[in-house]
Amino acid sequence: MKEIQYFEDFVVDEEQQFQGEYELTSDEIVEIGRRWDPQPWHTDEAAAKDTLYGGLVASSAHLFAITSWFGTNMPKHTAALAALGFDELRIHAPGRVGDRLHATARCIEKRASRSKPDRGIVISRMELLNQNDELILSMCTTFMVARRPTES
Amino acid sequence: MKEIQYFEDFVVDEEQQFQGEYELTSDEIVEIGRRWDPQPWHTDEAAAKDTLYGGLVASSAHLFAITSWFGTNMPKHTAALAALGFDELRIHAPGRVGDRLHATARCIEKRASRSKPDRGIVISRMELLNQNDELILSMCTTFMVARRPTES
Repeated sequence: MKEIQYFEDFVVDEEQQFQGEYELTSDEIVEIGRRWDPQPWHTDEAAAKDTLYGGLVASSAHLFAITSWFGTNMPKHTAALAALGFDELRIHAPGRVGDRLHATARCIEKRASRSKPDRGIVISRMELLNQNDELILSMCTTFMVARRPTES
Repeated sequence: MKEIQYFEDFVVDEEQQFQGEYELTSDEIVEIGRRWDPQPWHTDEAAAKDTLYGGLVASSAHLFAITSWFGTNMPKHTAALAALGFDELRIHAPGRVGDRLHATARCIEKRASRSKPDRGIVISRMELLNQNDELILSMCTTFMVARRPTES
């Protein structure tokens, strides 16, 4: 079992590196594209060449899902109770076939719940970057996180 | 071939209803949960009962992907060139097994590109609702959209 990261363990301005990397494959870009966002630049290598992108690129839904996957792949397991919102999601550069993505998060704000003593809100800026440290996606995530249980 | 909705065809404040509905199944919630967001409330019906949600709920990545799917399922095909960003994504209520989701979009802003005469920016508020018209997810999407080609 991983150690648990409670509300108290988040430090504002501290950056965390997510574990692992995620390689974008042509097969997966096309699979996710066909299922959720069938546009030629996500589904068809040849047709994608004639678009603004000049080749296959990962769909927003795919990049969002990968960011979510990194979020569950921390050194410690976050005691998240619920995802409340996502802000300022920007696609800075396309995710392309063969890109090896990694991710970071920086806590930018935290506040204890006034009405419920067992939880708080943690806002973090997450970044998804490629093997050249080029920024692919950034977003601010707002989660409800459990406080460390008090011993009784 | 569907008719194409160019930049010129978006009318600020006009609401569009997306076609079709999307039923959340237990199998798909668990499949997407295991793959992208392995938390008990997305992956295990029995364990989910003991969480804040009291049962299986769709992951944020799943709801985002479904919203994306609706976006490609308009009466007309949007001449989108690129997704630039997503703002104020809020999960208002959980998406549960058996929910039949539908979606709407309202254009809230549009502006022509100053540097490139063939395109513009369209900002829309999208909503994902269940069969009781309860709001599940809302977000503002910013897309680069092609202008109608001029005849030459």
